[in-house]
Amino acid sequence: MEKIHSRRSARIDAERLWRALIDLARIGATPKGGVRRLALTELDRQGRDLFVRWAREAGLAVRWDAVGNIFARREGSEPLPPVMMGSHLDSQPSGGRFDGAYGVMAGLEVLRTLNDHKVKTRAPVEVASWTNEEGSRFAPGMAGSGVFAGVHSLRFVSSQKDLEGVSFGEALERIGYAGAGGPHPVGAYFEAHIEQGPVLEDTRTTIGVVQGALGQRWFDVAVIGQDAHAGPTPMELRKDALVGASRLVLEVNRIAREYPDYARATVGFMQVMPNSRNVVPGEVHLTVDMRNASDSTLKKMKDDLQASATTIGAECRVSVEVREIVHFPPCEFAPELVDAVRRAAGALGLSHRDIVSGAGHDAVYLARVAPTAMIFVPCEGGISHNEIENARPEDLAAGCDVLLQAVLERAA
Amino acid sequence: MEKIHSRRSARIDAERLWRALIDLARIGATPKGGVRRLALTELDRQGRDLFVRWAREAGLAVRWDAVGNIFARREGSEPLPPVMMGSHLDSQPSGGRFDGAYGVMAGLEVLRTLNDHKVKTRAPVEVASWTNEEGSRFAPGMAGSGVFAGVHSLRFVSSQKDLEGVSFGEALERIGYAGAGGPHPVGAYFEAHIEQGPVLEDTRTTIGVVQGALGQRWFDVAVIGQDAHAGPTPMELRKDALVGASRLVLEVNRIAREYPDYARATVGFMQVMPNSRNVVPGEVHLTVDMRNASDSTLKKMKDDLQASATTIGAECRVSVEVREIVHFPPCEFAPELVDAVRRAAGALGLSHRDIVSGAGHDAVYLARVAPTAMIFVPCEGGISHNEIENARPEDLAAGCDVLLQAVLERAA
Repeated sequence: MEKIHSRRSARIDAERLWRALIDLARIGATPKGGVRRLALTELDRQGRDLFVRWAREAGLAVRWDAVGNIFARREGSEPLPPVMMGSHLDSQPSGGRFDGAYGVMAGLEVLRTLNDHKVKTRAPVEVASWTNEEGSRFAPGMAGSGVFAGVHSLRFVSSQKDLEGVSFGEALERIGYAGAGGPHPVGAYFEAHIEQGPVLEDTRTTIGVVQGALGQRWFDVAVIGQDAHAGPTPMELRKDALVGASRLVLEVNRIAREYPDYARATVGFMQVMPNSRNVVPGEVHLTVDMRNASDSTLKKMKDDLQASATTIGAECRVSVEVREIVHFPPCEFAPELVDAVRRAAGALGLSHRDIVSGAGHDAVYLARVAPTAMIFVPCEGGISHNEIENARPEDLAAGCDVLLQAVLERAA
Repeated sequence: MEKIHSRRSARIDAERLWRALIDLARIGATPKGGVRRLALTELDRQGRDLFVRWAREAGLAVRWDAVGNIFARREGSEPLPPVMMGSHLDSQPSGGRFDGAYGVMAGLEVLRTLNDHKVKTRAPVEVASWTNEEGSRFAPGMAGSGVFAGVHSLRFVSSQKDLEGVSFGEALERIGYAGAGGPHPVGAYFEAHIEQGPVLEDTRTTIGVVQGALGQRWFDVAVIGQDAHAGPTPMELRKDALVGASRLVLEVNRIAREYPDYARATVGFMQVMPNSRNVVPGEVHLTVDMRNASDSTLKKMKDDLQASATTIGAECRVSVEVREIVHFPPCEFAPELVDAVRRAAGALGLSHRDIVSGAGHDAVYLARVAPTAMIFVPCEGGISHNEIENARPEDLAAGCDVLLQAVLERAA
């Protein structure tokens, strides 16, 4: 009874967690308070080195695999597959201090706390730092977790090149993190992450109990009309590609609002040609990003988009070509782990709500090989992938406490 | 009677006109069959030199004024102000062979024809080549005719600089066409030009009897919302600047279709920021170009645009700032000269229709200081300001014959 009481009452050290995040954020710090620590650069190496040093100082067994994923393990009393925590240390080109780094530092803090309280677990507990989650220097993103989960081959990922022609494999060798070995069994995987959206802040909620991640379909769209002079060309003789494209933007927006279950749809990119004040645009290229929690609804959204494109093409006398370039099906996290997160938040007296991740995370790939869940905490204004990304120390600590309790429930 | 019969039966030399256009188009010829002869460049000088040589060979008195406008005069029998023809020899960066050049070469051909037939006119007849109509190298366009008509001062135009920092005045000196003197009285001005729109071709009409030019109002519009991640950000929490901008594009299009009298409205330029596939756009900049034959209707169109912007701003939770940067009132040509063009086309048995110029031309400025009219001929597909601009020799000849007859009516 004493031991169980002690476990349940264990709390992470909020100040130590914050200090770790701030110390780590010095590596690749940008003038505006953000972080630029692209995957497999010298700065990534420094970030990894710091994490490895801290993990070893905490008495953890550290190793890295062939794709550079780092694992720091605290042994359990039984030969069970580990309960794993983790996220990534690489950043966007103009990234923030918490995206990814929080999940790794929170995992480290959980292990430090277990040490402080001399907690013995049956299963080993690990923290993983996955290689190249952002995909900013080398495509694709979520590369390390993708190889771990068998989504990508090591050969494919290693051969990817950056803009200077340096391959992923060469860059990994160069920073000294090309290890050996492939995936190992995982008993459960938890990833703590800032929300990167506004829902928690907007609803004044501390903990997001993540149900899974939206499926995604990405499209490239070309609208082709005919350039013409804005002055001499009567409206009825025009083939204005931008009028067609604008109607499509509004249809994309309508589709998102019409379909249930977290439907989202965005035109984020648009290029107008020739893009001159007094020329009717002859050509517009744009992208469509559609997301939904249900794969069948996502398919209906795609069909709706294509029907809209056909209607617009006929009515605006332009050609509208829609080409799908990416399809990620939705991901559902393991109910028993999601429940563990919810229970932990409840036991800690923290406000919490179910939420679905709109973005991809390493956890989406881990979910293919292990029971998986995520814990979201609010970020200021919902802003991420930006140097001004920010999060409150108390929210980060709360998320880490939830992580500790959920891990304890699974590893005990 | 003999003389009048001879005048009415005089016809221009279609082959000579075509050869002049083709020979001139060799200066600055582009690989795709177009012309690049920017104002006050060495190529512009070569084009001017050729025109001056041909004019002198035709026995015309040639001079140029302080802004570089060239005038080639055939004397009349009385000290009357001249009947003037003209257009411009400079081109767009990727321009065609006929835009501008046609009006100058047609004027020269009319004077050559008067010589061939030994026609005596009461008034002198002149052909003018106006400096820098296109405004591609130096802003503003219609600079030479603008100075001639007192719209711009010589000092203002001369001080304008190109992208390399060379001033208009320096460039004019350098090519040897900085003459002396200002404007002289003009009895009537006729400008022949390709339509630069599709109406004549579409209606299988040879001659456009130009009533005047549309008024123009130009706007710069900024739509400001908030960047956000396309995945995690629910639709109802977005401030999507591109959704707002797209609604505005459609409103601009609606406005053009709702107002009578040749209403035209165009969004030709749009810039989306940050313009990334999975980021909800936070900022869009676009231009609006509105044109109408009636200034009061044009004002209503502007008011409608501003009301639409306000509605969209509120409904899309974005700010929409509309700033007017240019206002040209509509221009009405002189009824007696327009009638002369119509009568000439009728007498020659040519299909003709009334038309309004959607674009600005030197004639719009000349109309401020002299009775003015224009003659349009079809261009292929309505395409201009493009290397593939094309026109049929027989249409160019027909327009030139109309010019000859209209000039004879006024100068006789």
